[in-house]
Amino acid sequence: MEQLHVIKIGGNVIDNSEALHRFLKDFSALQGHKILVHGGGKVATQLSETLGIEAKLVDGRRITDVETLRVVTMVYGGLINKNIVAQLQRYGSNAIGLTGADGNLIRAQKRPVKTIDYGYVGDLKDDSIDAKGIAALLEAGFTPVFCALTHDGEGQLLNTNADTIASALAVSMAAHYESTLIYCFEKRGVLEDIDDEDSVIREINPERYEELKTAKIIHSGMIPKLDNAFSAIHSGVRAVIIGHADELGNLQSSGHSFGTRLSK
Amino acid sequence: MEQLHVIKIGGNVIDNSEALHRFLKDFSALQGHKILVHGGGKVATQLSETLGIEAKLVDGRRITDVETLRVVTMVYGGLINKNIVAQLQRYGSNAIGLTGADGNLIRAQKRPVKTIDYGYVGDLKDDSIDAKGIAALLEAGFTPVFCALTHDGEGQLLNTNADTIASALAVSMAAHYESTLIYCFEKRGVLEDIDDEDSVIREINPERYEELKTAKIIHSGMIPKLDNAFSAIHSGVRAVIIGHADELGNLQSSGHSFGTRLSK
Repeated sequence: MEQLHVIKIGGNVIDNSEALHRFLKDFSALQGHKILVHGGGKVATQLSETLGIEAKLVDGRRITDVETLRVVTMVYGGLINKNIVAQLQRYGSNAIGLTGADGNLIRAQKRPVKTIDYGYVGDLKDDSIDAKGIAALLEAGFTPVFCALTHDGEGQLLNTNADTIASALAVSMAAHYESTLIYCFEKRGVLEDIDDEDSVIREINPERYEELKTAKIIHSGMIPKLDNAFSAIHSGVRAVIIGHADELGNLQSSGHSFGTRLSK
Repeated sequence: MEQLHVIKIGGNVIDNSEALHRFLKDFSALQGHKILVHGGGKVATQLSETLGIEAKLVDGRRITDVETLRVVTMVYGGLINKNIVAQLQRYGSNAIGLTGADGNLIRAQKRPVKTIDYGYVGDLKDDSIDAKGIAALLEAGFTPVFCALTHDGEGQLLNTNADTIASALAVSMAAHYESTLIYCFEKRGVLEDIDDEDSVIREINPERYEELKTAKIIHSGMIPKLDNAFSAIHSGVRAVIIGHADELGNLQSSGHSFGTRLSK
């Protein structure tokens, strides 16, 4: 099977235009099939503030009301997505910018209201991703760039977590490719010593993961992140790599390492 | 050769949500390959005003400065384009929303500065359209939905006239399809009597066009529009139809007519 990299970048990269350009250049240089998933960054929040749209929170959870959905559709689907696409074209990647509505590639369901009505938020189901459709785009030479928007198939766009989209893509595409999921975040990887950026743990398998948790080296916020990563691996993803966007260029160069690699 | 309809809708349809939904339903029902091109409407102007971005005019010509480009990227490429795509999916068209940057499908050049610097405005060249790439999307079952944005291949998005994009698409695609270009506007077609909406002239060929100009039935603003239409026909487009978005449903139904049909 051919290789596929599904790479997710978050707000910390998007908000820093130099870091973003550096990342997009490295992303373009990556060999093989690839998919980019991007989050939102501060632009949407800033635009909402300028437009006088108050952030709606219920029990500390952010709600996507109709006004907020308009803003994220403009910022994620338009401003950020299309500028990333134009830059990737400049660097030689045949990028195509997509929401889940485009080509019906990611169909979600509006999150059911239990105690909280999250508004226009989409949850992914097992059959949300059209892996065959995405594979057809990859085989045609396109590099899909997904923003964090999906749809319900009934005309409604839905705000959807970018980490979840990236993970679901990597899992679904594992039927067609040897798929690797890469999360770029603000650290160089999982650190042995939180105060030492050079203490990146290069490899973690499930046994080592248990040891690191027992030793309290991995704790609190990292645990759900890594649980999700191992869950993707158990669903067919070959490896999940967590690293800093600035170092993506090391991924395929010999003698250099990139982030922490989680695998079976 | 198979048939292809390239259909352009303007602001008058986009600004009226009922008219837009009606149009999208009729568009979805059209048989055969099709491409939608949409303009901007008032939303971009309204957003600019809300954000305190002044419309820049030089000699009465609108300038696309960096702030305006941000707004149109958000509104055309995000808000309008992605909502149209989501609606078309609802009606059963496998729509995919695109700027010219996506898949490098329309590469323009920034308008050269002569007396006026129009800012981030793109002009199309003869080789701007990647007809083969678009044909591949059509053959894969997608319905491309283009907004009025292109790119220069160097990372720069460019604001580009939607009528021009539609015409260039119809001309370029004529190498692969029997292509018909349809402009939806606020009239039912070219009228014999401007005060009688029922006086639609159904067919105009170049000879009849000369007669209608001589008789002053066609004059002023319509002349450049129709000149462009005949120029597209002379470049391989089978016909250009000008009609009201509300009547698109008549296009393929027997016993009904849609707009004014210009052909050789």
